[in-house]
Amino acid sequence: MAHAVSPLAPKAVPVLPPVDGCRIATAAAGIKYRNRTDVMVMLFDAPVAAAGVFTRSKCPSAPVDLCRKHIAGGVARALIVNSGNANAFTGAKGVETVTRTAEAAAKAAGCAPGEIFISSTGVIGEPLDAGKITAVLPDAFAAASPDAWGEAARAIMTTDTFPKLATASAVIDGARVTVNGIAKGAGMIAPDMATMLSYVVTDAPVTAAVLQAELAKLVVPTFNAVTVDGDTSTSDTLMAFATGAAAMAGGVIGSGADKRLPAFRRLFKAVLADLAQQVARDGEGARKLIEVKVTGAASARAARRIAFSIANSPLVKTAVAGEDANWGRVVMAVGKAGEKAERDRLSIAFGPHRVAHLGARDPSYSEQSVSEYMTGDHILIHADIALGRGQATVWTCDLTKDYVAINGDYRS
Amino acid sequence: MAHAVSPLAPKAVPVLPPVDGCRIATAAAGIKYRNRTDVMVMLFDAPVAAAGVFTRSKCPSAPVDLCRKHIAGGVARALIVNSGNANAFTGAKGVETVTRTAEAAAKAAGCAPGEIFISSTGVIGEPLDAGKITAVLPDAFAAASPDAWGEAARAIMTTDTFPKLATASAVIDGARVTVNGIAKGAGMIAPDMATMLSYVVTDAPVTAAVLQAELAKLVVPTFNAVTVDGDTSTSDTLMAFATGAAAMAGGVIGSGADKRLPAFRRLFKAVLADLAQQVARDGEGARKLIEVKVTGAASARAARRIAFSIANSPLVKTAVAGEDANWGRVVMAVGKAGEKAERDRLSIAFGPHRVAHLGARDPSYSEQSVSEYMTGDHILIHADIALGRGQATVWTCDLTKDYVAINGDYRS
Repeated sequence: MAHAVSPLAPKAVPVLPPVDGCRIATAAAGIKYRNRTDVMVMLFDAPVAAAGVFTRSKCPSAPVDLCRKHIAGGVARALIVNSGNANAFTGAKGVETVTRTAEAAAKAAGCAPGEIFISSTGVIGEPLDAGKITAVLPDAFAAASPDAWGEAARAIMTTDTFPKLATASAVIDGARVTVNGIAKGAGMIAPDMATMLSYVVTDAPVTAAVLQAELAKLVVPTFNAVTVDGDTSTSDTLMAFATGAAAMAGGVIGSGADKRLPAFRRLFKAVLADLAQQVARDGEGARKLIEVKVTGAASARAARRIAFSIANSPLVKTAVAGEDANWGRVVMAVGKAGEKAERDRLSIAFGPHRVAHLGARDPSYSEQSVSEYMTGDHILIHADIALGRGQATVWTCDLTKDYVAINGDYRS
Repeated sequence: MAHAVSPLAPKAVPVLPPVDGCRIATAAAGIKYRNRTDVMVMLFDAPVAAAGVFTRSKCPSAPVDLCRKHIAGGVARALIVNSGNANAFTGAKGVETVTRTAEAAAKAAGCAPGEIFISSTGVIGEPLDAGKITAVLPDAFAAASPDAWGEAARAIMTTDTFPKLATASAVIDGARVTVNGIAKGAGMIAPDMATMLSYVVTDAPVTAAVLQAELAKLVVPTFNAVTVDGDTSTSDTLMAFATGAAAMAGGVIGSGADKRLPAFRRLFKAVLADLAQQVARDGEGARKLIEVKVTGAASARAARRIAFSIANSPLVKTAVAGEDANWGRVVMAVGKAGEKAERDRLSIAFGPHRVAHLGARDPSYSEQSVSEYMTGDHILIHADIALGRGQATVWTCDLTKDYVAINGDYRS
């Protein structure tokens, strides 16, 4: 299932700097893939603040259940991620696997099992042998280095066509603060039932409570504003860890009202937004990144629902694949969102070209200019509802024959 | 945009008997297509009971707005339908077009404009010239015949690959009752922005109030249980007319408690269900009809939401296209529906083959038998939630490369 690298991939894979207090190792455990790494271990030299948001699926995987339980403690010492098998829909056996893995990792790290976090991505419904993972842990723990971010991003890939990394840095309160992040693909991809996984690590001194509050807020305009096919995996996981190694003059940020927080938030959001867009850029078969912007909705929530209605519409996505500025389909998607909208107020633009205005085709638009715009690889669709002040932006990609080919292949 | 007839089309197009009191004519008005009919006129010799349900789109077309207004009167004398132009998102000009068309038809039929119903299907956002339609009305009114059902079904087609007709008949209360229906395609198809339109005519003596109540109830398990791509057009219309020409001994059915109603309901539902399934069978690029059955949900509503979550999932639909019994994707779709579901109770079957049971892969299933089943052209996916007694069945079709090809073609 090797696919050509997405034409929307960033021109270069960034090299991430170390984050003090965090070391990484990867290993080839032979869970499913041959000749590549499939286990990633992230170790923290001391207990660090941990935060996480997880899939809203009512049928989450065993690792997601474990993370949800452990995140209540707010402390992490190690993260273990494997690709090739999602350990989802594996019943009691799946629970046993995460329990045994957490116990082995806790023993190696010298901590409580509640400070271990686990993710798995890959095929659903196949039992995952904990022994394959625990067998590689001792060597991985010994080999962990602060510079293995690129290897980490590669080890967690399933059918991603490029590794996803992002970093941001700034001096805050006298300390150089770094935020690093890695992610793997969105979309539920055959034969691997891939999943969105992302891990962000910073050396900022932030309490778990503040980190959790920031993550919950920032996920909305970043990862939760990306859709590839509207399908939600059983395993989606986004975690953040703060080692606190960057010693700020004013000590630890422990309140949402702390004046240093906005500066940290900018870095954190930049990394999350960068990773989220990379995920959309690697949508199966994607050839165009689509940015859907809705303004003038009755509320921000309404704007978001309308934006997702457009971004998830197969008809809008196939039209963009065909380089067709088919605004009739955008009208349809606005109409079916179930939110307040009036035909006679609606305006629709593709990039700078307004094609519909006040309930009818905009007589001034040039079909040729719009058609030229549609040949680009970043298409902005802007729907102005002209009813209120709610706005939202979401990202998706076009729906191509390659999407069907990738997802319609036989599983076995 | 001529496409090969769907491999899921019925083996033969049924020939419909006349319904007393109803005559039909078709005409070639040259609205968009060349060398084919594009206007269908249905005339009633006397005022008949009328009922209708319409798109839930917040941006409905001008004809839908007109029908909604006129249906309050419950009386029809004529129905005018054109293909090639949806008269949607056409602003004040669109309203003027339906007003002029209704006035001309009312004059020809010798009735009030409020007894005229209009539908349009085709391109969105292009002004529709009322003159093209009104020009053909006099000849059409003169030529109308009781036997033109096949021509009617053809005149309203856009990118449908076959005409859709159904009929049912029985003796009720001493009278031979007939229910005839025609429909055109679901899915929003380029370049025509097609729409689901359906018209059912019966000679049963039923009041408009009873007809409306029955239609509102029966649309739920029939047309509203069909999805091609989850997209809702601006123009979806389902209307029913009762001429009352079949003289029952007990007179007109005027109450929902009438003992003759269940027998009529059976005919009515059979025709609606038949037409709805034909619509799914003509989904763009469809090669397999998918029946999704959900049992054991917390409520009927929950079952329906889960069933649609499965039926609208691009990943489930591409898996069926690839003849892959990928139940992991069904788990995903159950999980994302947002309804109560427990992994450890869930069972999933493809046809007679149970592949997952109580939160894990069913060890007894034969991969070979399931694979063989998946090569058929009618695939049943059954998810048992095992939590309550709610159940629902919905129909859809697979998602193939042809869907993308059809919908990704240039509009112009």
